[in-house]
Amino acid sequence: GSHSIRENNVWAFLRILPSHLRIVKDSRTARGRCSASWADDLDQVRTLLQLCLDRHFISPGDTNAELFRRGLSCTYGPLGMELRRNLLGQWWDSVTRSRAQVFGIDTLSNSSSSKDGETDVGGKLRIVQPQYLKQILQHLQQDLSKEQIVQELTTILQKSPAVRTNFLQGALEQFIPSLELVNRKLPFGLAETGLCFQPSDDSCCPTEMTQTSLVWFCSPRTSSQWLDHWTRQRLKWWRKFALSPSNFSSSDVPEEELTGLVSRSVKIIYDFPWGPEPLETLCSRGDAELLQTHKGARSKLQCRNGRKTVPHVVSVTGNMDRGLMAFLSNSLQLLKREDSKRKLQQRKVLKLHPVLAPVKVAIDIGKGATIELRQVCEGLLQEFMEAKISTWPGYLETMPVTMEQLNNKYDEMGVLFTLVISDNTLESGLLQVRSRDTTVKETMHISEVKNFISRYITAADKI
Amino acid sequence: GSHSIRENNVWAFLRILPSHLRIVKDSRTARGRCSASWADDLDQVRTLLQLCLDRHFISPGDTNAELFRRGLSCTYGPLGMELRRNLLGQWWDSVTRSRAQVFGIDTLSNSSSSKDGETDVGGKLRIVQPQYLKQILQHLQQDLSKEQIVQELTTILQKSPAVRTNFLQGALEQFIPSLELVNRKLPFGLAETGLCFQPSDDSCCPTEMTQTSLVWFCSPRTSSQWLDHWTRQRLKWWRKFALSPSNFSSSDVPEEELTGLVSRSVKIIYDFPWGPEPLETLCSRGDAELLQTHKGARSKLQCRNGRKTVPHVVSVTGNMDRGLMAFLSNSLQLLKREDSKRKLQQRKVLKLHPVLAPVKVAIDIGKGATIELRQVCEGLLQEFMEAKISTWPGYLETMPVTMEQLNNKYDEMGVLFTLVISDNTLESGLLQVRSRDTTVKETMHISEVKNFISRYITAADKI
Repeated sequence: GSHSIRENNVWAFLRILPSHLRIVKDSRTARGRCSASWADDLDQVRTLLQLCLDRHFISPGDTNAELFRRGLSCTYGPLGMELRRNLLGQWWDSVTRSRAQVFGIDTLSNSSSSKDGETDVGGKLRIVQPQYLKQILQHLQQDLSKEQIVQELTTILQKSPAVRTNFLQGALEQFIPSLELVNRKLPFGLAETGLCFQPSDDSCCPTEMTQTSLVWFCSPRTSSQWLDHWTRQRLKWWRKFALSPSNFSSSDVPEEELTGLVSRSVKIIYDFPWGPEPLETLCSRGDAELLQTHKGARSKLQCRNGRKTVPHVVSVTGNMDRGLMAFLSNSLQLLKREDSKRKLQQRKVLKLHPVLAPVKVAIDIGKGATIELRQVCEGLLQEFMEAKISTWPGYLETMPVTMEQLNNKYDEMGVLFTLVISDNTLESGLLQVRSRDTTVKETMHISEVKNFISRYITAADKI
Repeated sequence: GSHSIRENNVWAFLRILPSHLRIVKDSRTARGRCSASWADDLDQVRTLLQLCLDRHFISPGDTNAELFRRGLSCTYGPLGMELRRNLLGQWWDSVTRSRAQVFGIDTLSNSSSSKDGETDVGGKLRIVQPQYLKQILQHLQQDLSKEQIVQELTTILQKSPAVRTNFLQGALEQFIPSLELVNRKLPFGLAETGLCFQPSDDSCCPTEMTQTSLVWFCSPRTSSQWLDHWTRQRLKWWRKFALSPSNFSSSDVPEEELTGLVSRSVKIIYDFPWGPEPLETLCSRGDAELLQTHKGARSKLQCRNGRKTVPHVVSVTGNMDRGLMAFLSNSLQLLKREDSKRKLQQRKVLKLHPVLAPVKVAIDIGKGATIELRQVCEGLLQEFMEAKISTWPGYLETMPVTMEQLNNKYDEMGVLFTLVISDNTLESGLLQVRSRDTTVKETMHISEVKNFISRYITAADKI
C-alpha cells in the first residue's frame, strides 16, 4: 500500500495496549491468555489497520486511523462507507421492522438553549455563529469594561445552540406528538440514527459518532422485562453477522456504576484484541426524564394501559462506528500458506457477512482484454447494478497483475465472489466464479450468475 | 388534527408571498397567472402544511413548520422521516449506480482549522468545546488585560473546529487517495450525503440541511459536456418521481451571478406555489480549488488521460429537505366531491410516487374485530415487513371511525393500498384492496396480495 502507517506511530498506540490486556487477563483468568497470544493480538490489530488503509475502508492519515481504532467517526473511504451503510440499514430494519410499534423520527442536531431555559454556558458543546464571534472581538477592541465583556460574552454563548450528544432528549420531546399515532397505547418506540457529538478532553476537536437510538416507552411494571427483551434481540442481532459470535456478549452494569436516573443497565460488549469495549448500551430510565422534558404535565403523558400511567423509558443506544470496527476485527482471518514459489505467506481474508460485505462481486477479465470481453463485463455490471448488487469493476484496471494477486486483493476487500470473463465466455457463455470463503472456482453460465449471487445473499440473510 | 397551525402565524408568513408571486408573474407573463390562482396557491400551501402536521410528516410547532417551508432540516415525524429516507436512497442509487466510477465517501462534519492554517476566526460556524468557554469566562474574572483577553479568545476560537457548510472540500481532500482506486484514470466521482450547516442571519441557531453531493473529476476539455450530462441526468431523476413533471426545470445561472471560481452553473428548479426555488445546483469549477486544497502539488494530481492533466471539477449539490417539500407540494391533489350527506367536501390525496411513498400498505379490519381477524392482520404485517414493504398497522387503532374517514386519512398519508380484512377473509381467504390513485376496490386472495403490491412498486420504479 502506498499509505503505510508509520512504524513509530502504530507502536506508539500499540505500546499502551499490553496494560489493557493485562486487565482483561486478570479479570478473565479462566481464558488463560498468555504473552504469546498478546503478541498475536497486537500483530492482528496492526494488520487490520493496514488492511483498512490499503483497501480503502478508511482514508489515509495517522489521526484518521487513530479515530477509527478508538471507535469514533473518521473519514471513511468507499468500502468503509458502504460497510457502514449496510450496517446502519440492517440495524434500522431489525429495530423498526421487528414490531409494528416502532416509528422512525428525525430531530435537529442542534437545539436552541434559550428554549430550555438553561443557564450553564460551560456545560455543552455549542455551535457559535460567525457574526457573534466578530461581535465579541469588536466589543473587546472598543471601550467596554470587563464586566460588560463578561455580560456580552455570556449572553452570546447562552444564545448559541448546543449540539446533541445523543438522541434521547429528541425522542423524549417527540413523545407527545407520537402518542396520537398509537392511540395513547403502550408500548411503542422511537428510532433514530445519525451523527452525535461529544466534547473531547485531549484535543480541540469534539469527537463525532454515528449513533443508533431506540427509545422505548412502556408501562412501569414491564420495563424490566422490556430491557431483557431488547438485550436478547440486540445481542442476537450482533451475533447474526459475526464470524466468531462468542466475541459479542452482554453484561450487566454494576449498580455502583449506574449514572443519573438509570435504575438498571446492560451493555453489549465486543472483546477487541486490546480488551472489551461497549457497542450498545441499554438502560432502564424510569419516568423522571420524560416528566422533566414535559415540565411535569402528567395528564399529557398518561397512556391508556389499564390504569392511567406515565410510561417508563428504556433506551437502547449504539455506537455504529465501533460496531463497524468490531465486525472488521471479527471477520479478519489470517491464514498461513505457501505461495507459488513455495514461500510461506500470510493470506488475509475479510470474511464479512454477505449482507454486510461492501462489495459483493468483482468482475475481471482473464488473459487478453478485447473490446468484446469488456462489453460482456459492462453488460454484467449493468445487470448487477440494476439488481442492487454492489459490484467492483475490476476489468477497468489496466495494470498487469497475476490472478493470485487479484484474489489476495479481493479477499482483503471481503468481496464474496470474483467472476472471470475469458474468450471461452464469448464462445460458450461460461465464466469462472471464485468464492471468497471456500476459494473454490466453479464454472457457471453467464445467464445464471446474477440469480446465483442474489440467492446466496438472501439465504445468508435468513439464517 | 390536534396541532393546528395558529391562524395568525400561517398568515404571517403567507402575507409575504404575494410579492414573491408577483415577481414570478412578471418574469413569466406567458403563463398569465391571475389573482384567483394566487389565492388558490396560497390556499394550497396552507392546506399542505396542515396536512404535513396532521399526518406526522413533520413535528408540531410553528418554528418547525417554518423551517420545513423554507426547505431546511426540521424535526420530521415518522412519515417525513421515511419519505426523506426513500428520497435519499433513490438519489444514492441513481448517482452511485449510474456509472462504475462513482464512489461513496464519508467525511467528518467538523475540521480542525489549525490544519488549514486559517486565521479568519469570524468567517465560519465553529463548534466550541465547553472547557474552552469556561476558560474564557474564568480569564475574564481574573486579572488579565484587555489585550490578553483578545489574544486568548482569538487563540481559542482559532483552535475550535469549523463545521462544514457543504461536501466539496471533503471530496477535494479525498481526491488523492481515490486516484488509486481508478488507476489515475478520469473521469470519476465522489458521492456523499448528510447534514451540512449554514450560518443564519436572522436567528441565533445555524440552519441545518440534508445535502447530497457528487463531485465529478474529469479532463478539462470534457467538463462542459459533463455538466450537461449531469444536468440531463438530474432533471430526469427529479421528473421521474413527479406527478406534474413540468414544475421541475433547469435554468442556466446568468454569468453576472456566478460566484468564486465557477465558470458555468445550472440550477434544477422547482416552481413552488410561492415562486421558483433551486433544488440542486451544478457548477463547472475548473481546477483552482483542487490545486489549492493540495497546495499546488500538480504532479500528485495528474491523471493518465492522453496528456498529463490536472482534472477539472464539476460539482452537483442538492438540498433534499427542499426536495422533500417539492415532492409533497407536487403530489398533493385537491379534489372537490360530495360526501355521503351530499355536502361539498375537499378530498386531499397525496399522490406520492410509489417508491417514495413512506407507507405502501395499510391493514385494517372491517366490522367486528375478533381475535382471529387480528391474527390474520398480524400475519400479513409480518409477511410485508419481511418483504421490506412499509406497512401501517391500522388494525391496532381502536377508535371507531367510518371507512370513509379511514380512506381520507390514508389518502392524506399517501398510502398506496388499503387492505380490509373481514369475516369473509376467514371463510374464503378473500380481502378488499383499495387503491389510492383509482379509489377502486378490488377483491383479492390473501396469498396474492404481497406479490401484487411488490410488482406494482417495482413496475413504477422501472417506468
